[in-house]
Amino acid sequence: MSQRLSLDRLNKSDKAEFVRALDGLFEAAPWVAEKAFASRPFATVAALHDAMMAAVVSRPRQEQIAFVSCHPDLAGKAARAGAMAPASVAEQAGLGLDQLSDDEFRRFEKLNADYRQKFGFPFVICVRRQTRDAVLDAFERRLGNGIDAELAAALEEIGHITRLRLVDRVEGPGTPVVTGRLSTHVLDTYHGRPAAGVTVELFEVGQSARALLTRVTTNRDGRPDRALMADSPLRIGSYELLFHVGDYFRSCGVARDARPFLDVVPVRFGIAEPEGHYHVPLVATPWSYSVYRGS
Amino acid sequence: MSQRLSLDRLNKSDKAEFVRALDGLFEAAPWVAEKAFASRPFATVAALHDAMMAAVVSRPRQEQIAFVSCHPDLAGKAARAGAMAPASVAEQAGLGLDQLSDDEFRRFEKLNADYRQKFGFPFVICVRRQTRDAVLDAFERRLGNGIDAELAAALEEIGHITRLRLVDRVEGPGTPVVTGRLSTHVLDTYHGRPAAGVTVELFEVGQSARALLTRVTTNRDGRPDRALMADSPLRIGSYELLFHVGDYFRSCGVARDARPFLDVVPVRFGIAEPEGHYHVPLVATPWSYSVYRGS
Amino acid sequence: MSQRLSLDRLNKSDKAEFVRALDGLFEAAPWVAEKAFASRPFATVAALHDAMMAAVVSRPRQEQIAFVSCHPDLAGKAARAGAMAPASVAEQAGLGLDQLSDDEFRRFEKLNADYRQKFGFPFVICVRRQTRDAVLDAFERRLGNGIDAELAAALEEIGHITRLRLVDRVEGPGTPVVTGRLSTHVLDTYHGRPAAGVTVELFEVGQSARALLTRVTTNRDGRPDRALMADSPLRIGSYELLFHVGDYFRSCGVARDARPFLDVVPVRFGIAEPEGHYHVPLVATPWSYSVYRGS
Amino acid sequence: MSQRLSLDRLNKSDKAEFVRALDGLFEAAPWVAEKAFASRPFATVAALHDAMMAAVVSRPRQEQIAFVSCHPDLAGKAARAGAMAPASVAEQAGLGLDQLSDDEFRRFEKLNADYRQKFGFPFVICVRRQTRDAVLDAFERRLGNGIDAELAAALEEIGHITRLRLVDRVEGPGTPVVTGRLSTHVLDTYHGRPAAGVTVELFEVGQSARALLTRVTTNRDGRPDRALMADSPLRIGSYELLFHVGDYFRSCGVARDARPFLDVVPVRFGIAEPEGHYHVPLVATPWSYSVYRGS
Repeated sequence: MSQRLSLDRLNKSDKAEFVRALDGLFEAAPWVAEKAFASRPFATVAALHDAMMAAVVSRPRQEQIAFVSCHPDLAGKAARAGAMAPASVAEQAGLGLDQLSDDEFRRFEKLNADYRQKFGFPFVICVRRQTRDAVLDAFERRLGNGIDAELAAALEEIGHITRLRLVDRVEGPGTPVVTGRLSTHVLDTYHGRPAAGVTVELFEVGQSARALLTRVTTNRDGRPDRALMADSPLRIGSYELLFHVGDYFRSCGVARDARPFLDVVPVRFGIAEPEGHYHVPLVATPWSYSVYRGS
Repeated sequence: MSQRLSLDRLNKSDKAEFVRALDGLFEAAPWVAEKAFASRPFATVAALHDAMMAAVVSRPRQEQIAFVSCHPDLAGKAARAGAMAPASVAEQAGLGLDQLSDDEFRRFEKLNADYRQKFGFPFVICVRRQTRDAVLDAFERRLGNGIDAELAAALEEIGHITRLRLVDRVEGPGTPVVTGRLSTHVLDTYHGRPAAGVTVELFEVGQSARALLTRVTTNRDGRPDRALMADSPLRIGSYELLFHVGDYFRSCGVARDARPFLDVVPVRFGIAEPEGHYHVPLVATPWSYSVYRGS
Repeated sequence: MSQRLSLDRLNKSDKAEFVRALDGLFEAAPWVAEKAFASRPFATVAALHDAMMAAVVSRPRQEQIAFVSCHPDLAGKAARAGAMAPASVAEQAGLGLDQLSDDEFRRFEKLNADYRQKFGFPFVICVRRQTRDAVLDAFERRLGNGIDAELAAALEEIGHITRLRLVDRVEGPGTPVVTGRLSTHVLDTYHGRPAAGVTVELFEVGQSARALLTRVTTNRDGRPDRALMADSPLRIGSYELLFHVGDYFRSCGVARDARPFLDVVPVRFGIAEPEGHYHVPLVATPWSYSVYRGS
Repeated sequence: MSQRLSLDRLNKSDKAEFVRALDGLFEAAPWVAEKAFASRPFATVAALHDAMMAAVVSRPRQEQIAFVSCHPDLAGKAARAGAMAPASVAEQAGLGLDQLSDDEFRRFEKLNADYRQKFGFPFVICVRRQTRDAVLDAFERRLGNGIDAELAAALEEIGHITRLRLVDRVEGPGTPVVTGRLSTHVLDTYHGRPAAGVTVELFEVGQSARALLTRVTTNRDGRPDRALMADSPLRIGSYELLFHVGDYFRSCGVARDARPFLDVVPVRFGIAEPEGHYHVPLVATPWSYSVYRGS
C-alpha cells in the first residue's frame, strides 16, 4: 500500500503518465482513462472513479457490450489456463474457485455457457464482495434478467471491481468506502459484566462446505482485540459464530453439570452489505441468550 | 398399555401370582418381588417400587454385586447374540447401539472390558434415559469411580430401569413420573403476535452423528400442536432446534432480500433431566432473537 | 349470571315476551327488538345481536340520529341527577366519572357541549371498554370527525354497549367474545427456572392519576394463580406492571448489595384491544430483563 | 482546572510551600501535609494521596477521632450558619441538603444527634458520591456499626473526600480515577439498525422526590453525543431512564394506533459504584425490549 500514488500527483500528470498510472483498472480499456483525463483535476478519489465510470456509461450500448465482453469467464477455462489479467487472478483466488470440485466446475461451466448463449458476453461479478455460494446464487438469479437489466448489472459489478482496484492504487481525499466490518461482543448478564476469555469461532457456511475463518478470545471488555473481519469488503454470504459460553461459565465457577443447557452457542447470519458494519453481540447467562444486529 | 395390571389387583394377589406378575422387572431376581410381597398392600405404585428397591439395598454387599452381575453387557457380544432378557433388548434399541460402527463397537467393548476388570460386574445404565453420546460420557466418567460409589451408581440406574418397567406394567395411584417433555413456542415481536406456520426441526446432535427426530409447524398460537418430545423420559444428550424464521418473515411479506440477516436459526442445548420439562421458546424479529429455558 | 335467559327459550317466545326480555338493551328503543323478532330463530347469540344492529342500521339517517340522541350525556348533568337508564349508570361507574374533579368535570362538560353543538346528538362510547383517559382521548379525536364518520362511530359504540348487555342477559351457543385477558409470567434466567414468589403490581396509569388495580404473587410456575384482568373487556388505556425482582433475588440468596442494579422493574404498556389477550412476561436476571407481548 | 498545580512542581516545593498548596484538603489538619512532606518525591498523584492518608491512619485512635470530629455536621446548623470550610459547602450543595423540607431537616438532625451521642464525632460521608437518599440509607446503616467499624468507615469516606479534592487541585501522572460514567444506546431491531432521534430522559428517583437530570436525543449511531453522566463520581442512588420509543416508531412510519403497546419505556436501575461505568442500552421493537448492564 505504501507505493500508492497520490491523487494530487495524478492530477498533475500529463496524459501519457495518467493513462499509464491507471492501466489495467478497466479490463483492456485504456480509452476509459483517456476520456477521464479531460475532467481533471479531481477533488476526490471517488470523483475520479465516477469520471471513469461515466466514460463507460456514455458509450453506445454496443460498445458497452464489447467492453463487458473483454472480461474473463468466471471459473472458466481461462482461469485454469492463466490467460486472465493479473489483477483478476488475485481477486478470484479468495473465492476458492480454483479449488472447485469436478461437479462444481461443471456447474459453473454450464452457467457460463447458458449465460453467454443468452447474453453474448461473459458473466461479470466482483468476486471480492462474494462468497462462492453467493456467486452461484447471483449467477442463477441474473440468468433470469432481461438483456438491459443484465447489462446494467454487469456495469455495476465493474464499478465495484474498479473501485476496489483504484483504492488499492491511488490515495487521497474522498477515498470511497470499500471495506466492511464484522465485530462481536459477549455480555455476561449472570454477573452483570463483559464476558472475558470466551472463545469465539467464525465460519463461512456454504451449501456444500464450511470453513473456519478465524478463532478469537474476548478481552476484559468482552470483545476480541480486533474485528472478526475488516479491511476489505465483507463477502456476501452465510456465516456462523460459535460462542463457547459453556467453557466460560465453567471457568467462572458457576456450578455446571456434565451436560449444561448451553454449551457452544451457534449464531447463523447472512451478510448482504459488503461495505456495512455488522455487529453481532451475544448477551448470555447459562440459561438464556439474545442476539441482534447491533452497531 | 391397556393390558396394564391394576395396583389394586396386585395388592389382592397371592404370592405366586404377585411374583409372576412382576417377573422380569428385576433381571433374574424373583427374590425381589418375593421380599416386597411382605409389605403389601401398597398405597401407590411408587411405594411398590420403593419396596422392591429396598429389598435389593438391604442385601449384603456381595449379594448386591452378584445381582448387578446378572445384567447384560451393554453393546457387548450378548447384545448381538440375542442372549439378553427381552425387556433389555427393547430398551437398548432406541439408542442405536445395534448400529454402532466398527470403531464405536470396539470403543464400547474396550470400555466394557476395562470396567469389568476394575469392578468385576457389567456396566449398567438405563439407556431409555440416555442418548448414545451420553452413555459413552457416563461410561468414561463412572470408570473413574471407586467401587462403593460405582455400586451405588449401578443400583441407582437399576432403580431407573425398573421404575420404567413397572410403570409399563402396573397402573394405579401414585404412579412415579417417568416422562419428560420438550416444548417450544415462536413469538414474532416484529408484529407483536405468535408466529404461525414456522417450520421447526429437532435434531439429536452426537459427537459423530446427527439425527432428525421430528419436524413440526407452529399453529396460530405459535406452538406445535403437540410437544416435540413427551410420553417417555427425555434422553440425556445434546439437541438442536432449527427455526425457519427466514421463510416465515418472507411469507409475511416483510420485504427481505436474497440473503436475510436471519434465515434458519439454530438453537443448541443440552438435556440433563430426563423427567424434566424443557420449554425452549424463540422470540424473534428479522434482526434479533432471544432464547431461554422457559416453563 | 345464573338467571340468564337461554337463547333457545327466547327463540320460542312470542313477540311480547321477546320484546320484554330484551327491554332496555337498546336505549329507549323497543322497536329494535320488535324488528329483530321477525328473523327468529337465531342459531347463535351473535346472530341475535347482528339482527338487532341491522334493525338500527337499516333505518333512515334521521331516525338513526334520533336513536343516538336518546343516549345520556356522558358525565353530564344527567349522570348526577340520576336520570339515566339503570344499565348505563352501572356501566359508567367503573370509569370513575362520578369522581371527577371540578376541573375534569368542566372539561367533560365543555367537550359534551362542543360535541352536541357540532353533531346535535350526545357523545356515545362504551365506557366498559375504556379507561377515563381513553374516553377523553376518544372524545377529542372524534370531535374532529365529519358527521357521517361520527354517526358510524356512535353506532359502533352502541354495538359494543348492547353486545355486552346482551351477553349479560342471554346465554346460548355462539356467544360473542366480550372479554379480554391480561396475564404475566416471570422467568428467572439466572437459575433457569420460573421465578416463584415474585410480587407483581398492576396500575392503571392516567394523565393525572394512577390507581393500583391488583397485587399478586407468582406461583411455582412463575405465574399468578389467575389472570391479572379477565372476565370483562380490558379497558383501552395505559398500564404499568411493577415486578419486585430485587426482593426475589435477595430471597434466593443471590448476594446483592444495598443498591442492586435492578430492584422494582416497571413495565409500562398500552392496551388497544379490549377483547384481546395481552400476555406480558418478564424474563430477568439481577442484571438484565426482557419484555414482550407474548401469547 | 487550568490552574491546577503540577505534581512535579509540588515535588520541588519547600515545606512551607508544600503545606500551603495542600491547605484545606484535610479539614483543619495541616499536620497531614507536613507529615506527608517527608515522603517526597511522589511518583504519582495517587501515591501522594496514599501518603496523606497514611499520616492519618498512623495516628493513635484518639487523635483520629479528634481529626474526624473537626468535620462539619451534615445538614446541621453549621451548614445553615456558614461555619463550614469552603470546599465542604460546595460539595454538599449538589445533594440538595440545603433544600430539605422541615420534616427531612428534622430527620437529619435526629440522625446527627443519635450518631453524635453514640460515636462522639460527626457523621462524615463523601456527598459527591451520594444521592440524598443514599446518604440517608448510609446514615441509618452506619448507626448500627460498632465504634471501630464506624471509625474505619469515616476514614474511608475522608479518603474519598480528599481524593476528589486532591484531583481538583493537583495534576500529574497516576491520577486516581474519581469519575464514573453512565451511557446508553438504543437499537431498533424492527429495522435492524441504531435508533436515531430517540428522546431519552434521565431522572434521579428518591423516596420523596424525582428530578430530571438530563434530556438527550440519540444520534445516527443510536447514542447520545455524550455520556448521560460523566466527569465526576456517579452518585450512589436510584435512577430512571425514559426512552420515548413510541414517538420514534411513529416518526419512522411504522403504523401505530393511538394507544401503542410501547410508548415511553421506563428503565429503573441502581448505581452502587461511583467510579464505575454503567452502560444501559435498550434493544427495542414496537412490541418488545431488552435491557441489561452492558459495557
